[in-house]
Amino acid sequence: MQRKSKDLLWWPFTQHDLVPVDSVTVIDSRCGENFSAYKAKEKKIVPQFDACASWWTQGPDSNLQIELARDMGYAAARYGHVMFPENVHEPALRCAELLLGGVGKDWASRVYFSDNGSTAIEIALKMAFRKYACDHSILVDSKKDITSERSIQFKVLALNGSYHGDTLGAMEAQAPSAYTSFLQQPWYSGRGLFLDPPTVYIKNKTTHLSVPPSICHDQQNSCDTCFSSLTEVFCKTRDTSVAANLYVSYISQQLSQYAMSNNSEHIAALIIEPVIQGAGGMHLIDPLFQRLLVKECKNRKIPVIFDEVFTGFWRLGVESASELLGCSPDISCYAKLMTGGIVPLAATLATEPIFEAFRSDSKLTALLHGHSYTAHPMGCAAAVKAIQWYKDPSTNSNLDLDHMRLKELWDGALVNYLSSLPNVKRVVSLGTLCAIELKAEGSDAGYASLYASSLIRQLREEDNIYARPLGNVIYLMCGPCTTRDSCTRQLTKVHRRLEKLN
Amino acid sequence: MQRKSKDLLWWPFTQHDLVPVDSVTVIDSRCGENFSAYKAKEKKIVPQFDACASWWTQGPDSNLQIELARDMGYAAARYGHVMFPENVHEPALRCAELLLGGVGKDWASRVYFSDNGSTAIEIALKMAFRKYACDHSILVDSKKDITSERSIQFKVLALNGSYHGDTLGAMEAQAPSAYTSFLQQPWYSGRGLFLDPPTVYIKNKTTHLSVPPSICHDQQNSCDTCFSSLTEVFCKTRDTSVAANLYVSYISQQLSQYAMSNNSEHIAALIIEPVIQGAGGMHLIDPLFQRLLVKECKNRKIPVIFDEVFTGFWRLGVESASELLGCSPDISCYAKLMTGGIVPLAATLATEPIFEAFRSDSKLTALLHGHSYTAHPMGCAAAVKAIQWYKDPSTNSNLDLDHMRLKELWDGALVNYLSSLPNVKRVVSLGTLCAIELKAEGSDAGYASLYASSLIRQLREEDNIYARPLGNVIYLMCGPCTTRDSCTRQLTKVHRRLEKLN
Repeated sequence: MQRKSKDLLWWPFTQHDLVPVDSVTVIDSRCGENFSAYKAKEKKIVPQFDACASWWTQGPDSNLQIELARDMGYAAARYGHVMFPENVHEPALRCAELLLGGVGKDWASRVYFSDNGSTAIEIALKMAFRKYACDHSILVDSKKDITSERSIQFKVLALNGSYHGDTLGAMEAQAPSAYTSFLQQPWYSGRGLFLDPPTVYIKNKTTHLSVPPSICHDQQNSCDTCFSSLTEVFCKTRDTSVAANLYVSYISQQLSQYAMSNNSEHIAALIIEPVIQGAGGMHLIDPLFQRLLVKECKNRKIPVIFDEVFTGFWRLGVESASELLGCSPDISCYAKLMTGGIVPLAATLATEPIFEAFRSDSKLTALLHGHSYTAHPMGCAAAVKAIQWYKDPSTNSNLDLDHMRLKELWDGALVNYLSSLPNVKRVVSLGTLCAIELKAEGSDAGYASLYASSLIRQLREEDNIYARPLGNVIYLMCGPCTTRDSCTRQLTKVHRRLEKLN
Repeated sequence: MQRKSKDLLWWPFTQHDLVPVDSVTVIDSRCGENFSAYKAKEKKIVPQFDACASWWTQGPDSNLQIELARDMGYAAARYGHVMFPENVHEPALRCAELLLGGVGKDWASRVYFSDNGSTAIEIALKMAFRKYACDHSILVDSKKDITSERSIQFKVLALNGSYHGDTLGAMEAQAPSAYTSFLQQPWYSGRGLFLDPPTVYIKNKTTHLSVPPSICHDQQNSCDTCFSSLTEVFCKTRDTSVAANLYVSYISQQLSQYAMSNNSEHIAALIIEPVIQGAGGMHLIDPLFQRLLVKECKNRKIPVIFDEVFTGFWRLGVESASELLGCSPDISCYAKLMTGGIVPLAATLATEPIFEAFRSDSKLTALLHGHSYTAHPMGCAAAVKAIQWYKDPSTNSNLDLDHMRLKELWDGALVNYLSSLPNVKRVVSLGTLCAIELKAEGSDAGYASLYASSLIRQLREEDNIYARPLGNVIYLMCGPCTTRDSCTRQLTKVHRRLEKLN
């Protein structure tokens, strides 16, 4: 199978020439957070902790997986797939109700289904642009010949380091990088104003705030500071702090400057990954900065999109990361954990005013976007089970019912130890995620990632932890129901490995 | 459920204000080609023939659906989902083998999995552009600063009326229409040279070829002609006909003209839906025209993409529509029927030379594109079952084993009668598809589509056929294993309805 897979498959995000045949992992099966891999050398099948949660999709403990398997068989037998426009079936309706009563609570009123994070984002952008056009009296007459309006350019406001998916529309909403080069996507042009965000991390047992020079450029000193804990970082009293003033003036100055130098261009949407930028390297963005950004955009009637594809469904310890930010979007996108990580399904949620921008007596103003498997019953049935499972105290013992968030999964003391190791640059620990950036030594920029590779190999081969590096970042990711004991076991192994490598 | 769905859902391609609450179809279940809908008036559940094959996805007869349900339960229990890059699991490998031995036979050597038709197309475009860049010595040095190269513009060669999906990259490969307006997608610019294709249809029991004026502009007379049968249309002896000369000169003249007037622009890929343009209105494109287009592009080292999302897996009576064309692509895209129409999964197939264009010792030249659920085991397991089921004579009695194609499903005589009705403009009948374009009377352009709506309503309410119009086109679509008897029953009902409405 290793040989055949090298010969026939084309893996995503993989340089095949860098994958030796004997390093291909043959996966026999999964049980909850672990999958079983065949080890060729030992000729046996060994369970491995899926530390990357299979690209951040996995939610099930072994009990939920059994439930999902039963529900999948039932949904396949009862519905297979059935077409969605102008139709309804019970799993889709129930799923929509759970989304609006959960991640969309108190703000969203409509659910638009699609297949994955990228399509959810493309749909969100179309929604935002239409709303912006309506609010700013662009194209109020839909019958008007619209080709003449192409002199108007719509752009997004987004953050450097953000990532929203791999289809062209989603790519256009992210800042230039190696992933968006001409070599990779000749059609990419980067249709956005990209701001530098301040970030938060743990180093030497202390929570640090790092403010980029572009924000505090007229200050004599660095604006970096420390906090007693993450709780303080998320505290709303910071809205009147010095940092808040600094952020607001940076944001409004950037927007004004852009408007002045780009006459025909409109910032027609804000798109952010709330709290944590995932693919960009597991950076915790200062929630104060994002909250003020949202406020500024709402003041200017720029629709706000939260990309919760990574952060949604308890990934960060709360059902929606908007709870951590303390503000709501106009549109948000969900996928990955939504189905318990068993089949692809995505949803774009929107407020009623967004939906209203598409209503008329003409089909031409409807949102003319769709995918064949929209709201496929198996995906919806899986989501119905998973969404309820995560938030039910009888099935998820990690729930802190007083605050409707997950109890601490990654041992705080251990995280602090890790953050004090000399080869560790920073740690971010929140909800189901514990990410560790390794320090690059001296001028050798490649060092840390070589170092990461060697660490990853040891974790896989010696510790039965299937981790995958994200540049210089290694991380452990569990499900919303994974026991703290299991998390501690994995984290202890990583700690030992890092100590030894020192 | 009707009321709730109107309040909470946001349907794709639907103007909600045009959908009365009581017209929402509540789907209780599916069994093979039929689903059961709750009829509010009669307070009972009634089976309906799914004439749009749930957006062209459906393959199962009731036997295959049972098999798929069992396999889905098993795959969910055994694998759930597991991460794919650098990994392999049995359903993915088996699925890749079946694809390469089936739709990719004799030309493809690599399988790239993704989630739906749109993503498969975006991946195909990235593959084609890279290959073109390599073959034409653009960016041979990957380490070079590539921002300076943005003066080069890559475009596609495509056909008017084509449709390749709703994400921005896929949209850019289609000609401007109401679906691509500023109102719908402000980022669309139409990055292609779009040619006018000749089409084939049946009217008054005769097979007609309609050649657009742009192709035969220097001829005194119309180039339209007739054929004795569809078989003649697909016959390779036409390669030396007058029409062939006409096509070749049109194609090469268009390409030369474009090259002369667009210095920095390269036609870097050809993308076509082989044989039938689906969403564009069920047009049968003259296979001779497409075959010559492919040949011309291969001569010019322009990579050729077949969008087989609609046409693949026996939709047109053969496993791959390339068999009907008599030529192979460099890249092709599959989705919809691939899983038996039960869960989303897509695949982009490529030749080894395409794959080679991404190989090096650097990750930067790899295809940096991927989706979380890439090659998810449930989708692959479904595809493994469906692909084999369709082509096994013990499970599919429609197979004509001598020619490895489906026997005629839509009664030829009945199709001819239909094509002779005065309110019918044209009929296209091929494989599992029978499409009927209604005639618009006089100057009232909206007439036919109102007429279609009324017909659709009668089919749903009186005949238990769930059809959905595509502009002025109504169509019946069955699965590869649907019995000819069932097809005849449905077609007879449509025929009666159309006769009465005359």
